[in-house]
Amino acid sequence: MRVYLAGPEVFLPNAREVLDAKIELTRRHGFIPVSPGDLEIPAQPTKRDFGLAISAVNERLMLSADAIIANLTPFRGIAADTGTVYELGFMCARGCPAFAFSNVAQSHFERLQIYYDGRIADDAQGRPRGSDGLAVEDFDMAENLMLDGGIEARGGAFVTRTAAPGRLFEDLAAFEECLEIAAGRLLRDGKPSSSS
Amino acid sequence: MRVYLAGPEVFLPNAREVLDAKIELTRRHGFIPVSPGDLEIPAQPTKRDFGLAISAVNERLMLSADAIIANLTPFRGIAADTGTVYELGFMCARGCPAFAFSNVAQSHFERLQIYYDGRIADDAQGRPRGSDGLAVEDFDMAENLMLDGGIEARGGAFVTRTAAPGRLFEDLAAFEECLEIAAGRLLRDGKPSSSS
Repeated sequence: MRVYLAGPEVFLPNAREVLDAKIELTRRHGFIPVSPGDLEIPAQPTKRDFGLAISAVNERLMLSADAIIANLTPFRGIAADTGTVYELGFMCARGCPAFAFSNVAQSHFERLQIYYDGRIADDAQGRPRGSDGLAVEDFDMAENLMLDGGIEARGGAFVTRTAAPGRLFEDLAAFEECLEIAAGRLLRDGKPSSSS
Repeated sequence: MRVYLAGPEVFLPNAREVLDAKIELTRRHGFIPVSPGDLEIPAQPTKRDFGLAISAVNERLMLSADAIIANLTPFRGIAADTGTVYELGFMCARGCPAFAFSNVAQSHFERLQIYYDGRIADDAQGRPRGSDGLAVEDFDMAENLMLDGGIEARGGAFVTRTAAPGRLFEDLAAFEECLEIAAGRLLRDGKPSSSS
């Protein structure tokens, strides 16, 4: 079973090292890893064409995969990396088992409380709203309900943990917990291989 | 042709009014609008179950649609609403024509320059990185390359404009431009209906 490893690790200074660690853990749990960066991107005439070529290669890799594990750790703000979220929606539409993890254990609602500095109040209909008037989702979920809902509807799990200090995108404990759950649900023998 | 209208307008205090305006504009351009909130969500025992029910209804609405127009205006930060991005990826995987708009005209790279307060420098490989070491995408795109790439690969367009002051999520000029382009590409007569 081929598992697409989505996440913003590609942006790290030590991306290759972290991707290789994820690939190795994925193999150890009995899956075939499919990772962005697996294929070379051919040179292109413009920056934009190069970006489009990366997109095309990643879509091709997703189409070759049977499941996804998405790193939804908040990225440059309070929400997940949009590229990773696109990929999660893409794989969910294909009916693939979808798993996710975040290295921030706070719920979506808790992150919004921090974003609004606690200035959240119920409107006349009893719906919580931030100081800018925008409704605040309070559904005991780790991210926007489309993400948590899509994962749950495909039999997946969304694992959240607090990362080791300074290792927000490098701590792989939550990722490994995801792999263990996915192996239990998706692989014939239901267990990580003995080398894990 | 049924068009799913994805976007964070659902969070606005005047959500119904803005959604109704989008629905009306969509009809006027010859499409059948499919909008979150079209279906009633049945009561649920827990907050989480209610969130899951909304997700299920929105997925059902997407499956009933033939195309998507996604509002990718930066939401609570420098990037698009994650729920909307999930829906964009979902519809792209289904092979549906995908269009998007943003009421912020800055490119992804320009927003990152602001985010990093200009502290972006090339690494040893010539790849731009922010002060935290994270790579900065510089592909002449409006959002993460998976979003711009997915839209372009499905024959769509990504329209960006600067919204009227104080109307970041209510200004529908970019949305209407999207509808015009979509009608030209997707409808038999190639033009908005005479009532527009």
